[in-house]
Amino acid sequence: MKIGGKPYRSIWLGEDGKSVEIIDQTKLPHVFETATLRTLDDAARAIATMQVRGAPLIGATAAYGVALALGVEATDDALDRACDTLAATRPTAINLRWALDEMQKSVRNQPRDKRVAAAYARAAQICDEDVENNRKIGEHGLGIIQAHAEKKGGTTVNILTHCNAGWLACVDWGTALAPIYRAHDEGIDVQVWVDETRPRNQGASLTAFELGAHGVPHTLIADNAGGHLMQKRLVDLCIVGTDRTTATGDVANKIGTYLKALAARDNQIPFFVALPYATIDWSLGDGSAIPIEERDAEEVTRMTGRLPDGSIATVEIAPPGTSAANYGFDVTPARLVTGFITERGVAPATRDALVTLYPEHRKGQGP
Amino acid sequence: MKIGGKPYRSIWLGEDGKSVEIIDQTKLPHVFETATLRTLDDAARAIATMQVRGAPLIGATAAYGVALALGVEATDDALDRACDTLAATRPTAINLRWALDEMQKSVRNQPRDKRVAAAYARAAQICDEDVENNRKIGEHGLGIIQAHAEKKGGTTVNILTHCNAGWLACVDWGTALAPIYRAHDEGIDVQVWVDETRPRNQGASLTAFELGAHGVPHTLIADNAGGHLMQKRLVDLCIVGTDRTTATGDVANKIGTYLKALAARDNQIPFFVALPYATIDWSLGDGSAIPIEERDAEEVTRMTGRLPDGSIATVEIAPPGTSAANYGFDVTPARLVTGFITERGVAPATRDALVTLYPEHRKGQGP
Repeated sequence: MKIGGKPYRSIWLGEDGKSVEIIDQTKLPHVFETATLRTLDDAARAIATMQVRGAPLIGATAAYGVALALGVEATDDALDRACDTLAATRPTAINLRWALDEMQKSVRNQPRDKRVAAAYARAAQICDEDVENNRKIGEHGLGIIQAHAEKKGGTTVNILTHCNAGWLACVDWGTALAPIYRAHDEGIDVQVWVDETRPRNQGASLTAFELGAHGVPHTLIADNAGGHLMQKRLVDLCIVGTDRTTATGDVANKIGTYLKALAARDNQIPFFVALPYATIDWSLGDGSAIPIEERDAEEVTRMTGRLPDGSIATVEIAPPGTSAANYGFDVTPARLVTGFITERGVAPATRDALVTLYPEHRKGQGP
Repeated sequence: MKIGGKPYRSIWLGEDGKSVEIIDQTKLPHVFETATLRTLDDAARAIATMQVRGAPLIGATAAYGVALALGVEATDDALDRACDTLAATRPTAINLRWALDEMQKSVRNQPRDKRVAAAYARAAQICDEDVENNRKIGEHGLGIIQAHAEKKGGTTVNILTHCNAGWLACVDWGTALAPIYRAHDEGIDVQVWVDETRPRNQGASLTAFELGAHGVPHTLIADNAGGHLMQKRLVDLCIVGTDRTTATGDVANKIGTYLKALAARDNQIPFFVALPYATIDWSLGDGSAIPIEERDAEEVTRMTGRLPDGSIATVEIAPPGTSAANYGFDVTPARLVTGFITERGVAPATRDALVTLYPEHRKGQGP
């Protein structure tokens, strides 16, 4: 996508062919700044501190993190240590584990002198696959938005999204936002309700930034507002991303997603989840088994923004010493999901539908 | 309730017997500061800018606003103008209109030279009635919490609340928080999940402040977190307040309440609404007819808090120029409400149960 007219991905190889460039997402929307990852620790820190975030981008960054580690030492031990370090950064998004498995598969059988090149090649391929998968998610989701536009006689299609599942969460295009970008580019009149997404405000800071940069009409709302908007028929459909989806269709996504899914169901509004195959955890049959990250309480008691002079400041919003709990994700049960938008098409949130889309994961068959 | 050991109400008559003192709630939790209302305009501004807020306290402040206006001019015209000015400050809380009706009834039939005294007397009475009603709400709600404590064998009873329906929202005690204070004072082990309550953060700023000052254990959470906590059985019951309740039991309360009621229902967790009779709008049979206040978009795009040096600052959290929508309330349908906790007892959220509690409002009977 473009920032100020210049095309960007959210991660790319540096000019030296070794280092990795990212957009430092902790500074958005106030400052657009790139950062360079030169070591495994840089990559792990970028994931843990959420300079990069979003399930697909976490996977891509971890892949490059393995490449950076092998550039120092290309042994089996170094490979395993790198994967362990990166796997420990964040517990919920399964794309992280998927990407590390992919890197193991691509590297372990290579002779040491070919491992670094193999690692960079697979990391680049993971990024390119992500872009292509998201492009296809956009195509498949476009049909859903088009159908709503036709039903509404060309009047505005209002779409609610939670958190950021846009190009900043992926390598390009996004998952939940890919169909929205496609629809906007096709000339369909779309308007996006952007959930602020406390406590880290990925909606207010990243989704609003992305949509604004691309010129897609959008309105920021408090996370509390979605139910009212749905009751008042001001939402035509919801599209969100996911950090891990079970083989039975339960969806772990940013905390608060479940509340919007409940409201959508209560108001008969379609609730779609957009995802590439790497976000499906075929080993799990029940969303309650998905590990839910607990983060620092200060993310709840503090808020960062711009002061009137343009400088960035963090303010405390609660009484001094207030305890806070900070769960990063919740699980939306499959029964509340209207459908999945994947790179292979749209499907109901059921095990049968998922294995029909991905027959290579049918039980008893090989991977 | 006590602040630093000194007992306070949220509104009281000044030492001159004319002016009215309030706690400036826009400055909490950072600064505890009182403000003096000397004129009708002071009172109207205090309500509109939310120096005072919460349905019962809005009513009490409006009552004193009428007294302040009559102190300048005690004509019928002045009385009507004062009521019109105050009624226009905020649209959703019915207590405001109820209090203005009460003031009209108490003043209009009085000779002019007795109107000021009558107005101050009725305003004081409205305040005292509110305190007594909330005390009784505390008593009736205590039984509910006690039952949970017994069922849990004395282990912690976890109660989720949204926004602030504590003593700062009333004259004293609070509505939703009154049973919690009573339970805590009785030695029951209660813990409160405090919804931050974006965009104005009444949970983070007022409920956390109140509970902390009284020593009630509490944990601040993002508004997004409640559904997950309920799924994980970390919430035993929910208690919230209301700004207007229809005769059929629909509840308008702070935006986001509906989402929590949906999650409570989905997880079979009791969802109670605490209210005094003045919050019931007997003229409405359908919550969708309740006017929903829309407030300034800047409440969504900005956040106020303490800088590290202790000074208060407001930061912008969204990209410059971001549009935002700011609906103040949503309506929770009666079907999602387990019961009402009123000064006359606990009752299901139905028309029959409400007129059984308040037989004077049975259709075809007197006022």
